Order: sequence, then structure tokens, then C-alpha cells
Amino acid sequence: MIKELIQLDRILFDSYKTKIISADEAALLIPDKAVVGASGFTKAGDSKSVLPAFAKRAKEEEIAITLITGASLGHTTDADLAANHALIRRMPFQADGTLRKSINDYQVKYVDQHLSETVEQLICGHIAPVDIAIIEASSVDENGNIYPTTSIGNSAFFAASAKKIIIEINTLVPKNFIGIHDNTVPNSYPDRDVINIHTPTDRIGTPYISIDPEKVIGVVFTDILDQPAVIAEPDEKTTAISKHLLNFFEKEVQNGKLTYALLPLQAGIGKVANAVLTGFKGSNFKNLTMYSEVLQDSTFELIDSGNMDFASGSSITVTESCYTNLLNNFEKYKDKLILRPQNISNAPEVIRRLGIIGINTAIEFDIYGNVNSTHIGGNKMMNGIGGSGDFARNAYLSIFVTQAASKENNISHVLPMVSHVDHTEHDVDILVTDQGLADLRGLAPRERAEVIIENCVHPDYKEEIRDYFERAKQRGGHTPHIMEEAFKFHVRFNETKSMKK
Amino acid sequence: MIKELIQLDRILFDSYKTKIISADEAALLIPDKAVVGASGFTKAGDSKSVLPAFAKRAKEEEIAITLITGASLGHTTDADLAANHALIRRMPFQADGTLRKSINDYQVKYVDQHLSETVEQLICGHIAPVDIAIIEASSVDENGNIYPTTSIGNSAFFAASAKKIIIEINTLVPKNFIGIHDNTVPNSYPDRDVINIHTPTDRIGTPYISIDPEKVIGVVFTDILDQPAVIAEPDEKTTAISKHLLNFFEKEVQNGKLTYALLPLQAGIGKVANAVLTGFKGSNFKNLTMYSEVLQDSTFELIDSGNMDFASGSSITVTESCYTNLLNNFEKYKDKLILRPQNISNAPEVIRRLGIIGINTAIEFDIYGNVNSTHIGGNKMMNGIGGSGDFARNAYLSIFVTQAASKENNISHVLPMVSHVDHTEHDVDILVTDQGLADLRGLAPRERAEVIIENCVHPDYKEEIRDYFERAKQRGGHTPHIMEEAFKFHVRFNETKSMKK
Repeated sequence: MIKELIQLDRILFDSYKTKIISADEAALLIPDKAVVGASGFTKAGDSKSVLPAFAKRAKEEEIAITLITGASLGHTTDADLAANHALIRRMPFQADGTLRKSINDYQVKYVDQHLSETVEQLICGHIAPVDIAIIEASSVDENGNIYPTTSIGNSAFFAASAKKIIIEINTLVPKNFIGIHDNTVPNSYPDRDVINIHTPTDRIGTPYISIDPEKVIGVVFTDILDQPAVIAEPDEKTTAISKHLLNFFEKEVQNGKLTYALLPLQAGIGKVANAVLTGFKGSNFKNLTMYSEVLQDSTFELIDSGNMDFASGSSITVTESCYTNLLNNFEKYKDKLILRPQNISNAPEVIRRLGIIGINTAIEFDIYGNVNSTHIGGNKMMNGIGGSGDFARNAYLSIFVTQAASKENNISHVLPMVSHVDHTEHDVDILVTDQGLADLRGLAPRERAEVIIENCVHPDYKEEIRDYFERAKQRGGHTPHIMEEAFKFHVRFNETKSMKK
Repeated sequence: MIKELIQLDRILFDSYKTKIISADEAALLIPDKAVVGASGFTKAGDSKSVLPAFAKRAKEEEIAITLITGASLGHTTDADLAANHALIRRMPFQADGTLRKSINDYQVKYVDQHLSETVEQLICGHIAPVDIAIIEASSVDENGNIYPTTSIGNSAFFAASAKKIIIEINTLVPKNFIGIHDNTVPNSYPDRDVINIHTPTDRIGTPYISIDPEKVIGVVFTDILDQPAVIAEPDEKTTAISKHLLNFFEKEVQNGKLTYALLPLQAGIGKVANAVLTGFKGSNFKNLTMYSEVLQDSTFELIDSGNMDFASGSSITVTESCYTNLLNNFEKYKDKLILRPQNISNAPEVIRRLGIIGINTAIEFDIYGNVNSTHIGGNKMMNGIGGSGDFARNAYLSIFVTQAASKENNISHVLPMVSHVDHTEHDVDILVTDQGLADLRGLAPRERAEVIIENCVHPDYKEEIRDYFERAKQRGGHTPHIMEEAFKFHVRFNETKSMKK
């Protein structure tokens, strides 16, 4: 079976040819309790064969690893690892239902990190170093270096720091899928360099990931595509959110604060952010750029429509048709794209220097502008903070979007107090729901509450939330709250499955 | 009276000599509803005459301003302004009892900002531009530029962007107090530059603040010193905190993660942070440096003891004896100090590049590592977030310190859930109380809870907090909580003035 997969012309470095093994053989090279650093960022460029083979091995053996990736993995890899108890610790992000359950049952120790910071923590020795890196590649050059596929994530640093490396060559990624990557690895302290990026188009690294060939313990061939993204069509709510936001940008242009090119855009993954970006299609906004983490379908639609000139990210996570279009027309898109390590795509330094407009999705936000991006009901992990904090903190504009209410309006996403804080009031400029937009810039907490309640809350909850705020004000304080009632909506939902009175 | 104050040899730019006015006259130049940008950072280098004269004017007239400073002001300036209803809006930081009460009574709209971000918000036009800048100086050079005194704060940008400028020359600051300042103003988007600082000693600006002489509407002379800092002597608790932290650093050195020079230190203002720094005196730690915001007495003690080589900050806020020593021996200290604008001292870019060890004070923290730096009881503002978030987010190590309990142990500073979040679990590495130290690096929330409860909680509260955690775990979840009980300590304190059962 392996032989059919092997394409020797993808390995221009001879000594690797003697290291070709099957995924099952590679899985046997991963010791119990190893720290594994694997490629993969929001389903893109992940290990399609070795990690699944390890999950299969863990079905038979009591064996488990610490798994560090770029972000979430595709297919059922995280699910299979979790189901077979193959994960001791997992970081920095995930988005899988089975793994989520294991995390919430505390069968997996999950460390939810800012996506820019995993490499920082590894460099500093704050977390255990990577024993084995597993990195998907399209090919190997004559020096043994590898060309990554649809994401970079943390792969460049995993490769540089791991004791051993397994390369997973994906023969479904065309050999010419080269030139859009810009790989680099930071120095250790105290000798850190400037990240010399001044526009989304700037390059500071190499198109390949540098590999010490001595560290390569196996080369595996695979022919499985990235799990395609599923993008929901814009609906009434996402269209309303998009409209509010585009109106806001239009006003900023009218007021001379921005031009129609805006500033480089970042958009979190998901249907709301994708719908917002799609809203730019055919609009007055031209020469747009992105400096983001995930490039979704909307990026390519905006390039096609002529509204966007360039997009920088750490991964390409798109639907099947968008992926096919990209591969078939790679030369057309090649000069308009860069993929970077996530410690660069999400670097605070670059985000502040470029003046990013960051658009991220909230699970819930409160009347003072604090945002919860990670927890349901205050205790259950959903996915993780991802890069939202990297962008929100340092952005030119920090925007969070969510629907005002959901589940037949039994859940209000605007609340007196969020049940978990991922982004504080200090880091949030604009909040948008389908009901409207709240511009919080320069406002004191009580002013924020007024505009959030007025513009963002669903009508079913407006009266009760306003009543909370009015009664809280009687108690005084800079940020009025009634501590014994602050979570009453969450408590009520736990009891009745509805936040409604 | 004015004549006695005037020292014409401090003005080397002739046209300013015609603009010398009294503080009262200067106060009359500030229109109602003006946005005033004033020098001053943690009591250092603030307006000693013009703002107080404006407060006096507001006693007679219904007149009020938006006041933006570097950080808190000294003497009774903020108190007098608040008492006379002279403040519409105040940002980005304060630490005055009278103003605090006005803020909590919502007579002043307070906007509590990361100290690095005020200039960002002004550049972007997110907040209204400065009409009048009031800046304390020691003298004026032959081009009309000014030498700031004991702080820079936001003064360089206020001077560059304000429509009008009032200079307040403080004749008690020696004329030779020159050479330690490094002033610079960022470009507007999209043309932001790299902040080219690679070590605390690097300079990127000018020793003076550039002034367009046409904008100067008044020069006022003053002879009032900065309000001296009052530093409490180390007590049992601060000594214990300092000891825990020094043991930790010692271990990091033993483990090869750091050298005895550590990495550049930042310490928040206050007695705990000061005591921690003082703990380095006569220790094994040598060639220490600081890249901080406020330089306190401990900085000078460490320079004197030979443990510290260099300190960079945005202000010098010291006791009277330390101040006198600095001025009398300025040549000795001059090459060991730099003062910078706070958007540079607190720049995320520089903090991450240098790998700062950030030590800040918490009001309370919770069992999962979230930190409250600003609010009492969930609703009342204490001072503000200051620069703690700038450092905590981007530091090599983010450390928060507080006493385990206070007020005859009626208040526990470690709680099931903090009543306000300023620093999320994602941004906190090490927590220290007098009881012990919790190293949270790489831990999942339930692991953090174990180590925090074990090491940091006061014995009077350990049983009840552990009981909360154990019962919360029964409900499951990544971050176990019992939402209806999460604030029970705060609610109990409101009712009984004690958090104890």
C-alpha cells in the first residue's frame, strides 16, 4: 500500500529516501508521554496519517502524549486521540466535539493559550520542549528542508527545536504549491530581533522550513486532503451584523479617519466573520488587505471581486470548491498571499505597527464591554481563545460580533456580567449584534452600558437587563453591579434551559 | 509674586519671554469643556501651578475639562479638580481618594486605559484630540524646545498634537537635569516605524520635547517640588512575598533558565513591588536592569548597592531623601537612567522583544489565575489598570503579588472568582502571596486551582475555598464553578464586613 503512495520526485534529498516508512511504523516511533509538536492550523496542513495511526495504536496500548499544534486539527484526529485516551495534555487550541467533552470531563488537560504565545513559552522553557515534530509537507528540497502545505502554524519552531522529526509528504498538494510561505524562527532571549514587517506583503523568512536532516526519523507519504471548511450561507442575522459594521466603516471614511482601503483586516474563523468579509464584495471598499491568521473563502472571493489586493495569514482553511480553485489557479493567487508562523501572523509587535482592524466572534459580552470567547455557562470550554486576544489587545480597532440571542431566543448573548472573561473592557472598541452596533471608544463604563443595552441587546431581554443596570446604579460604583444577581441569567438557564424570566 | 519666581536664564528662546504669565492667568486660557493633556506620571513632573489654579477658578465658575495625563498626579490637584467639579472626563489613571469618590459617584467619567494606549487612541482619533497641553519643564532651549522634569508620560505626544501649549517651568529642578530623557512621537497609520529598542539602554529620540513655538500661549514659573513618595518599610508580609519570589528566581537560575542578571525587570508602584526589588539588594543577583514605568527608591538602592546596572522608566517617583540624593548626585546616576514616553516604556513590541519580568500588584486573584487590579467588591474603582496589562500580556514572565488576607484577615485576596477581571488566566504565569508562590506555567485550570489553593490562600480561608472547588468539580467543566456561589465571599463581605463564615 505504501508503495503506491510514494512519489520519490518529491524528495530531492537522497538520505530521506531510506527513511520512508508507513504511518503505522511512524506511530511506533512516538514514545509514551512524549511531547509531540504537530503541524495543523484550523484543519489546514495537519498530520493526516501519523497522528491518526497513533490514535489507532492507543486503542490497543495504554499510551498517551502531550500534543501541541498550531490550532485545531481536521478530520477526526483530535476526536480519535481523545476517544482512545491518547492525550495527556493538549494545547493551544481545539474545536472538536469529542475532545471538548474529554476536556470538560478533565480526561485531557487543556491549556488554552493565545496563539502567538505557544512558541514564546517553548523558547523560554516555560513548557516542556517538543520531543517529536510531525510536519506535513508537499516536498523536500535538495538540502533536506521542507515545503509546508496549507498552514505554517508553529511548524517552523517545532522543526527547529524538536529532538526528532517525522515528515508527512502529502501527494495531493501540488509540487508547485511553493512560494507563499515565509518561515522564520525567533532567537532566544536576550537576543530577540525586530520583526521587520511594515506591510502585509513584507517577507522576512524563507519559503521552506529549515530542517536538520540528522533529526529526521521517518518520512511518511499520505494522500488525504485537508478536511474542507463548511461555510454556512449568510443568514438574516449575519447579514444584519455585516451591514451594521459596513455602515460603521463607511462613516469612519466619511469622517476622514480611514480611507476605503481601511487598514489591514483580521477576521476570526466562523460564519459571522466570514459573512462580514463577504459583505465587502462589490462595495466601495477597495485595495483592502488582510493580516490575519486564517484565510477563509471570503478572502478569495474578495481577491476575485477586485476588492482585496493581498492577504497574509497562517493557514488557508476553505471549502472544497475554493480549495480546488486555489490549486488549479495557484499562479493567479500566488503573488497575493503569504502564510506565516503564527507567532508572526499574531505578533503583538506587528499587529500594533500595522494598525490591524480585528474582527472576532464573542460567545457573549456584557454591558460594560467584557467579552467571553471560550466558556459556556462559566465552566465548560467551547474551543479556546485562539488568536482573538493577540489581535484585540493590539489592534487599531478591536471589534467583537455575535448574535443578540439564539436557540429560539432562549439564550441572550449580551448579559449583565460575562461568565468568563477573555477580553477585558480595556481591549474592546466596537461590539456588534444583529440588533445594532455599540461604539465604546472613549466611554466610561456607565456610558458603555447605555449604548450596549440600547443598541445590542435582543428585545426579549432589554427590559430585564436595563432593570438590572438601573438597580445596580443605586448601589453606586464605577462599574455598577449587584454581585448576588450578576449571573442570574446563567443560573436561570441552568435551571430552566432558558434565560427568559 | 511672579517676579520672584522668574529665572530668565531658563528660557533660551527669546519670544517665550514675552509670554510669561501667572498661573491664574494661564488658568484663564483654558476654555470650558477643553481637552487638556497634562504632564505627570505617578506624582512626578505634574503641573504644580496651572492645574491647581484652574481648580481654584472652577470653585467660582461653572467650568470643567477633560483631563488626560500620563498617570496619577501629585499633591491635591486631582482632589481639588474633583471637589470643584472641574472634571468632565479623566483618563488614563488616577490614585486620589477624593477623585476616586467622584468617579464611583459618577460625577467624573473615568476611562481606565492601558497606559501604553492613550497615545494610540489619540493618534487614531478614537478619542477627542488635545486642545491644550500643560507640560512641566526645567528649561527651554534656543529653539523653544523644552526639557521635561521627573517624568515624560504622554507629554511628547501632547506637545506634538495639542493646538496650544502652556509650559510650566519648575525652578526647583536643577538646570542640569538634562540628558536622561528620550523623547519621541509615533507616526500616524499606516506609516508606523519599528521601535528600535533592543536593550534598556537604547535611545531612539531626543533629550528634549519638540515644541512648535507658535503654539505656546503661556509660560508659567513654579517652585513646588514633586509630592514625595511615601514608602512603607518592608513588613512581615512584604518580606515573605519578596523571599518567595527570590527563591523562585534562584531556582530558575539553578535550572539554567535565567542568569543572575535575570532579564529586564518591571515593577508596579507600591510597597509590595518596592519590597520585592529591595530584596535583591546584596543578593546573588548582579547586573540587573529595569525596563519599567516608575522608578522608585528601590531602583536607586539597587544601583547604589551595585546590583543594578541600568534603569529605564517613564517617571522617577521617590521619597524626599532619594530625590535630594538624585539631584545632588545627578552626574553619578545620569548614565544609568533613561526616561521615555509611556507608549515606549510600556510598548508591547519592546516588552516582548526584551523579555521583561513583570511584577505587578493584584487587588485579588482567583483559583484559576484571573487577576483583578482595579475594582473593590466588583463595582468600585480603586485606581486603575495602569501599565500592568501592558507588561503582563507581553512579558517573559508575568508575576502578580498580593497579601493572602488583610484587614484582620476579614478580606481574602484569593477567591473562587474575581469580582472584576483585568488580567485573564491566559496572561498570568506566577502568583505570590505571603503564604507562598504558585507557578502556573503550562497548567490546565484545575491544576492551577490545586497549586493556588495549596500555596497562596490564607489558612483562615483554605477550607472553604477548597470546599468550593471540590463541589464545583462535581458539576464538571474545564473551569469548574458554581455560578450562584462564585461571588459568595464578596456578597458576605457586603453584608457582614467580613469574608469569613
